[in-house]
Amino acid sequence: MVSYKDFLTTDALDTYEDNELYTKEFLPRLEKYRSDLENAIKKEYLIQVPKSAEALAEEQFNALQYLYDEKLLTEKEFEITDSSSSRIVNQIAKGAWSAVEVFKAFAKRATIAHQLTNCALELFTDEGLERAQYLDDYYAKNGKTVGPLHGLPISLKEQMNYKGKITHGGYVSHIVNIPEKHAPSAEILEKLGAVFYVRTNQPQTLMHLCGNNNFIGWSKCPYNVSLTAGGSSSGEGAITAFGGSSIGIGSDIGGSIRGPAAFSGSVGLRPTTSRFSKAGGVSSAGGQESVPAVQGPLARSIDDIDMLMDVYVNQGQPWTIDCTTIPIPWRKVEKPKPENLTVAIAYDDGIVSPTPPILRGLKHVADKLKAAGVKVIEHKPLRTEFAYELVNKMYSADGNYKQRKLLAGSGEPLCKLTKWSLNYGEGSREFGVAENRQMSIDRDLLKQQYTDYLNENNIDMLISPAFVNVAPKPETAYVWSYTTLFNLIDFPTLAFQTGLYQDPKLDKWDPKPAARTKLEELEHDQYDPEQFKNAPIALQLTGRRYFDEEVVAAGKTIVDILKVDLLKHH
Amino acid sequence: MVSYKDFLTTDALDTYEDNELYTKEFLPRLEKYRSDLENAIKKEYLIQVPKSAEALAEEQFNALQYLYDEKLLTEKEFEITDSSSSRIVNQIAKGAWSAVEVFKAFAKRATIAHQLTNCALELFTDEGLERAQYLDDYYAKNGKTVGPLHGLPISLKEQMNYKGKITHGGYVSHIVNIPEKHAPSAEILEKLGAVFYVRTNQPQTLMHLCGNNNFIGWSKCPYNVSLTAGGSSSGEGAITAFGGSSIGIGSDIGGSIRGPAAFSGSVGLRPTTSRFSKAGGVSSAGGQESVPAVQGPLARSIDDIDMLMDVYVNQGQPWTIDCTTIPIPWRKVEKPKPENLTVAIAYDDGIVSPTPPILRGLKHVADKLKAAGVKVIEHKPLRTEFAYELVNKMYSADGNYKQRKLLAGSGEPLCKLTKWSLNYGEGSREFGVAENRQMSIDRDLLKQQYTDYLNENNIDMLISPAFVNVAPKPETAYVWSYTTLFNLIDFPTLAFQTGLYQDPKLDKWDPKPAARTKLEELEHDQYDPEQFKNAPIALQLTGRRYFDEEVVAAGKTIVDILKVDLLKHH
Repeated sequence: MVSYKDFLTTDALDTYEDNELYTKEFLPRLEKYRSDLENAIKKEYLIQVPKSAEALAEEQFNALQYLYDEKLLTEKEFEITDSSSSRIVNQIAKGAWSAVEVFKAFAKRATIAHQLTNCALELFTDEGLERAQYLDDYYAKNGKTVGPLHGLPISLKEQMNYKGKITHGGYVSHIVNIPEKHAPSAEILEKLGAVFYVRTNQPQTLMHLCGNNNFIGWSKCPYNVSLTAGGSSSGEGAITAFGGSSIGIGSDIGGSIRGPAAFSGSVGLRPTTSRFSKAGGVSSAGGQESVPAVQGPLARSIDDIDMLMDVYVNQGQPWTIDCTTIPIPWRKVEKPKPENLTVAIAYDDGIVSPTPPILRGLKHVADKLKAAGVKVIEHKPLRTEFAYELVNKMYSADGNYKQRKLLAGSGEPLCKLTKWSLNYGEGSREFGVAENRQMSIDRDLLKQQYTDYLNENNIDMLISPAFVNVAPKPETAYVWSYTTLFNLIDFPTLAFQTGLYQDPKLDKWDPKPAARTKLEELEHDQYDPEQFKNAPIALQLTGRRYFDEEVVAAGKTIVDILKVDLLKHH
Repeated sequence: MVSYKDFLTTDALDTYEDNELYTKEFLPRLEKYRSDLENAIKKEYLIQVPKSAEALAEEQFNALQYLYDEKLLTEKEFEITDSSSSRIVNQIAKGAWSAVEVFKAFAKRATIAHQLTNCALELFTDEGLERAQYLDDYYAKNGKTVGPLHGLPISLKEQMNYKGKITHGGYVSHIVNIPEKHAPSAEILEKLGAVFYVRTNQPQTLMHLCGNNNFIGWSKCPYNVSLTAGGSSSGEGAITAFGGSSIGIGSDIGGSIRGPAAFSGSVGLRPTTSRFSKAGGVSSAGGQESVPAVQGPLARSIDDIDMLMDVYVNQGQPWTIDCTTIPIPWRKVEKPKPENLTVAIAYDDGIVSPTPPILRGLKHVADKLKAAGVKVIEHKPLRTEFAYELVNKMYSADGNYKQRKLLAGSGEPLCKLTKWSLNYGEGSREFGVAENRQMSIDRDLLKQQYTDYLNENNIDMLISPAFVNVAPKPETAYVWSYTTLFNLIDFPTLAFQTGLYQDPKLDKWDPKPAARTKLEELEHDQYDPEQFKNAPIALQLTGRRYFDEEVVAAGKTIVDILKVDLLKHH
C-alpha cells in the first residue's frame, strides 16, 4: 500500500494541464475576470497602499496594526466594524444605526482588507449598498426588521453558488458557470437580513490548507502579509480577521474553515455534518459521503458564531430547502464554569510535532486553564497515522475523477499544492465500492473509539493544534493531519485564538526535535523563527458529535479565561 | 445499461454454492441448531396443533382467529397480551401485574405463534423468566422499576448481535458467530427494562420481501398461514401481529420492517436514518452509505410505536454508545385534527399497479379520510422507475462482494429470491467510486424533488401501497418499488393497517389490467383472489425526513378515523 509518507514529491501522478487550451480559451477570460474585480472597487473606499506588495511582504507587514495606527477608518467606522455582530443587528434593530452606515463602514474596511490581503474574488459594494438602502427603507416603512440579521454584512466563500454571478470554486474551467439561484445557505442568510457585497478567495481544487489559484493567487494573513491566510476558505480567514465582514461563511472538508481562522486571526466553527447546508456550490466532493464537507461560520467572536448558528438553524430552518440537512434545533447552552470542565490537550499527533509557537500556545492555554480551575489532562490522539492514511484515501477514492474533470476542463496549470493533494491517498487509482465500504466501516470504528475514549475518561473537550505551525508561507502546508482527524470522525471543532502571537525571540527551536519521518522533516524545515513575526497562535477545540453547542459554550469559557477579545484593538 | 425489467430470471449471474462444503461442514450444525430450537420450547406453553402444516396451509388457516376461538390463553393472559405496551409497563410499575405473570402470558402466546407461524429462530423463555423474576425482585426491594420498559417482553430480529448467542443473520456461514456483546439497541432496551426471550426469523441475505432461508424456512402470516409473514423482519411481523411480543425490533433497508408489518397484520415504523441505532449485527450492508439501513419498532398499536421511540431515544440516548446515531430528541407531537391534515394518495407507482385488495384499501382510506375532513389529493409518485433502478444499483454496487463472502462461506444453496436479489442492479459488476458518488448526487436530487413536491403542494403526508399485493406466497415478492423509494430518499414511513382483510368475493380483478411490462405481468400473475383469504390490507404513511414524530401522530389520527384497533379481537 502507498503511504502518505511516500508523497514527498509534488510531481503529480497524472496531470491534466493543456497550455494551448488554457492560453487560448481561458486566459482572456481570466484577464477580464481580474480587471472586473479591479474595476468593481469603489474609489471612495480605497487607501493608498504604503509600499509594493513585495516590500510589505519583505518587512512582514502587519496590515491590521497599520489599519489602527494610521486610523484608516473614522472613529464611528471603527466602532461599527469592531462591534460584535449581535450589537450591530441590535443597533440597527433599535434604529440607532442605519444599515447603510453599517454597510459603508464594512465596505471600506473590506476594500482595505482586499488591498492588503488579496482576500476578495468579487467585490460588489454597489449591490451591497442598494441592499442596505432597501433594508433601511423597509425598516422605515414597517417599523421592524426583515429578520434577525437585518443589515449585517456577511462575506461568502466564492465556492457557494451565487445567483447571476460567476461561481468557479477556484477552477478556471468554471469561469463560465453562472448559477441561477443562490446556494441554500446564501438564500437563508439573505432572508434573515444579511447584506452581501464580497465573495472571497480560495485555492485551486479547494484542497490546500494554504491557498493558491490561477485567478488572483493566494490570500495573506492580516497580521503578517508574507504569510498565507490559509485555505481553502482563504479569503474568509483574512477578511473576518481584518474586520472586513462581521461574519463570513466558509466550508471545511479537511480544515478549510479552521486553518484560515487559525492562521488569519479569527475564529471558525466546523459544525457537525448536516446542521448547516453545504448544498449548491462548485467542488470535487459531490456525492462523496465518506468525509462529508460542511459549511460554517468565521468571525472575530465566539458569541457571534453562536448567534449566527442560532438564527441560521432555528429561524433559517435549512432543512426546509435542503433535505440533506437535519432539523436539530440550535440549543442555548450556558458557558460551563471552569471547575466543571475537563479538557484533554494533545501536544503532538505523532505525525508531525508542532513548531515552537504552537507549543507555547498549548502550554499557555494549559497553564491558564489549570489556574482557572479547569481540569486539564494530557491526551495522546488515538490511531492518528491510520486516520490520516484513511482520510487521504477517502478524498481521492474516485481516482481524482472529479478533480480531473474540473481541472482538465480548462487545462489550467496545476499549483504546487494541487499536485501534492492529487497525489494523496492512492492518487489516480480509483477504488471499487467494496473497498470504499470497508473504509467507511473502519472510519466508524475510529469514530466510536474516540467517542468511547471521551466517555470513559470523562473528557468534555479536546484541545489540539489546528496545524503544525502558525500561518504558513505560500504553498507549504503539506500536512493536515490535525484538522482532517475531525473531518474523518465528524466531531464539531472550533478554531480559536490564544491571544498570543509568534515572537522570534520566544519561539525558537529549543532544540529542534529529530524528525521521525521525512514528512516531519519537510514540515519542520518550513519553520524559521524569524519568518513568522506576529502570526496569530491559534488552536482547535473539539467536542462530541452533534454537541456543537457545547463546543461553542466551552470555547467562550476558554477565551474568557485567556482574556482574548479580537474585537478590541491590541 | 441493464434494467430491473430485464431481471425476470432467477438464475443468479454468479452462484457461490458448494454442496460438499455445505453438506459436510454446515448441515450437521444446522441440524443441531434446529433441534436446539425445538428443545428450547417449554412444554407448558405448547398447544396441540390441530392439523399438519400442509393441511393448515391448504385451508388458509387463520391462526389468530384460532387463538381466540379456541381460547388458547386464559382470560388474564388475553388481557395482558392484548394490552398496549404502555398499559403493561404501567400495570407493572404500579404493582398491579408482576413482570413474571406478564412474561408467562407472552411466552405462551409467543410459543403458539411459533408453532403456527414459524416465527422464531431462537426461543429462550427460561432466561426470559429469570429476567422477569429479577425485575420483580428489584421492584420489591427498591419500590421502583429499573426503567420505563420494566418487564416489557420485546422480540428481536435475529440479525442483531446478542451476547453469547449464535447470530447469523440468515447466513449459514455465520452459524459459528457468537458476539461478545449486545447490539447497542438491545443493550439500550435491556437497560430500559425490556425482557428478551425470542429472536426472530429472517430470510437468507436479508434481501427478500417475503422470506426463506436454510435454517427453518419462511415465516407465515398469522391471518392466513399459506402466505408469508414478509421479510426481511419476517418473524417480527408474525410475532407482533400474533401478539407474541408487545413490541418487536426489526430492520429495514428496502421495506424489511414495513413489508412484514403490512403482510402480517401489525404496524411498523421505518424511522429516518440514525435516530435508532443499527450498529452491531450481521448484514451485507456494512459501510454502505448510499441506502442506509435502519432499525425500528413493530407493534400492534401506533401509540406503542410512539412510546417505544420516546423512551428509546430520550432515555436510551443511543448516541452515547453508538456515535453514528444523532442526538435528536423524540418530540411529543399531538395527533393532528383531520381538518388540518393534507394527504396525497398514490394508487400506482407506474412500475406495478396494486392488486384489487390493495386498491380497495386505498379507496377505503381515501373515502374515510375525506369523510372525516382530511384534505385528500391524488399523487403520482415522481420518477419511480429512475428511483427503482438507482436503489437496486446501490444495493449491489459492491458487485455483491459482501453477499458473496457471507454466502460462499458455507456454500449454502441459494434460495430463489436470493438469486433474484443478487441479480438486481448490475449484479456482480462492482461499481467504481466515481460512479457511486454520481449515484449519491442523483439520489439527493430526487430527495430534494420529493421535499419540494411536498412543500410546494402543502402536502403533510403521502399514503401508498406498502407492496403490490397483500401478503405474498413464498418466494414471490419480486418488486419492492413501493417501499424502496422511501429508503432511497430516507423519508420516515409507517406501515399501518386499514382494518380491511382480503375477501375473495370483493377483491377480484375487475378487469385485470393489461400489464405494462413483463415484470408487472409476473407480479400480477401471483394474485389469484381465492388464494389470499383474510390477508390484512395495509398501506404505508410517509412524511418529511426527520419528522418521524409527525408521521406517527398522523398515523394515530388516521387509524382513529378508520377505527382500527389491533389489540381488540376482531
